[in-house]
Amino acid sequence: MPTILVEVMPKAEILDPQGKAVAGALSRLGKDRYTAVRIGKRFELTVDGPVDDAMLAEVRGIAEDILANTVIEDVVSITVTE
Amino acid sequence: MPTILVEVMPKAEILDPQGKAVAGALSRLGKDRYTAVRIGKRFELTVDGPVDDAMLAEVRGIAEDILANTVIEDVVSITVTE
Repeated sequence: MPTILVEVMPKAEILDPQGKAVAGALSRLGKDRYTAVRIGKRFELTVDGPVDDAMLAEVRGIAEDILANTVIEDVVSITVTE
Repeated sequence: MPTILVEVMPKAEILDPQGKAVAGALSRLGKDRYTAVRIGKRFELTVDGPVDDAMLAEVRGIAEDILANTVIEDVVSITVTE
């Protein structure tokens, strides 16, 4: 069954405290080539049956209504993997 | 500056309550073609300077030591975007 991958990230202008915490940990460990870390969410939706344009449009709606908080997050990609 | 994308998902055999909650919400909304939903994490690491194999090996180590809890999660992909 195909899987639709939806990726959500915090908006660029939004503070990402978790990301900052990871970046701080990396620099304390001496790994200092990482100038920024941002953390988002990755959703895998397993679908029964073929994926067509109508389905992808539906998933775009689901992503923006349910999976992402569009006040502080962006849906950065929606892709299909077989 | 290049960005290294690290994607982490719960192991297949691990219960994913958040994923189940989203799947339940979708079916209550009448969107019933989604047989499963799994939720993971997506890390964007912005890197100062070029990304070479040694760097990718370092990121693999960081992903498995810091970004993922390898008892319950798998690092499913590490990719570079310019």
